[in-house]
Amino acid sequence: MQPPAILDEQPAEARNRDSRLERLLFRLEAQRICLEWAFREIGGRPGIVFEMGLGHGRTYDHLRIHLTEREIYVLDRELDCFADCTPPENYLLLGDIEETLAAAATRFGGQVILAHADMGSYTQAHNIETSAKVSRCLPAVLSPNAIVLSDLPLDLAGARSLPRPPGTPRDTYFLYVNGPHTSI
Amino acid sequence: MQPPAILDEQPAEARNRDSRLERLLFRLEAQRICLEWAFREIGGRPGIVFEMGLGHGRTYDHLRIHLTEREIYVLDRELDCFADCTPPENYLLLGDIEETLAAAATRFGGQVILAHADMGSYTQAHNIETSAKVSRCLPAVLSPNAIVLSDLPLDLAGARSLPRPPGTPRDTYFLYVNGPHTSI
Repeated sequence: MQPPAILDEQPAEARNRDSRLERLLFRLEAQRICLEWAFREIGGRPGIVFEMGLGHGRTYDHLRIHLTEREIYVLDRELDCFADCTPPENYLLLGDIEETLAAAATRFGGQVILAHADMGSYTQAHNIETSAKVSRCLPAVLSPNAIVLSDLPLDLAGARSLPRPPGTPRDTYFLYVNGPHTSI
Repeated sequence: MQPPAILDEQPAEARNRDSRLERLLFRLEAQRICLEWAFREIGGRPGIVFEMGLGHGRTYDHLRIHLTEREIYVLDRELDCFADCTPPENYLLLGDIEETLAAAATRFGGQVILAHADMGSYTQAHNIETSAKVSRCLPAVLSPNAIVLSDLPLDLAGARSLPRPPGTPRDTYFLYVNGPHTSI
């Protein structure tokens, strides 16, 4: 028996969950909106960019198109991206994020104006560990008023959480701004 | 030297290409809008659903959430989806699309009210071959007025092309409606 049409048209609010298609769509929308906001925020201010978690390279491609004059360093465990999204070798920092960030603290201390992290997985334990590593090691490279966007929640010393820009889909992205560095 | 802020904020129309992030975002937006339209179109009309190209299973998840009362058959070369998107075994038709569709012509002739194809790859030769196979074998299973959504252009005997619903991002999706079957 054919069900009435209404069963084929459940509005999102009547369903108890978003589909996986919607979840990816909302995450990409959030990423685009938050990055657009961040590009405006850092405009005219010096600094390099850290892309943490290259993945397929989609966000890296977005960053290099929008930030043509910035130096973009990419941190990931390994290289596994679309061939046309491969960063130049001298902008690639491969290894565990804790080690690459620790090494970066010397080379790039206080120089990062924008850090983007897309490092979450479907494993909760991995996510907690990654959040802790990034939270611990990222602050050393951030410039005053640096912007940090992350798919995982972070606890960054000296930085404060920011609300998502209007129109950003819910629960998908975390924004932080670094406080001005103070002398001890 | 720090570039002027304007260089960090190129509007999309000033750039010569969308980023890979935007391309995936636009494709998912198109998929969601076109599917929403298709769900309304088939509402109240009998028929089964064919999902051709399971991939990670995101669209299958979207279909089963929205079409709770429909039988959804999944056709793919192999099973490589998120564990929670695995179709029931008796709704899975594995093999080359030409063979599975040919076999389906006997079992499901004229019964498919909605067919969704997401079978494109980054290889042009593969896409042309896949388009040809689907174009040749799909018509036999389509019911009168069946809706076909595809990421690749198709040439379906008896069906006509439809414009994309308003708001659909450009060049991302192809829509067809089957003409009423006529007796010879």
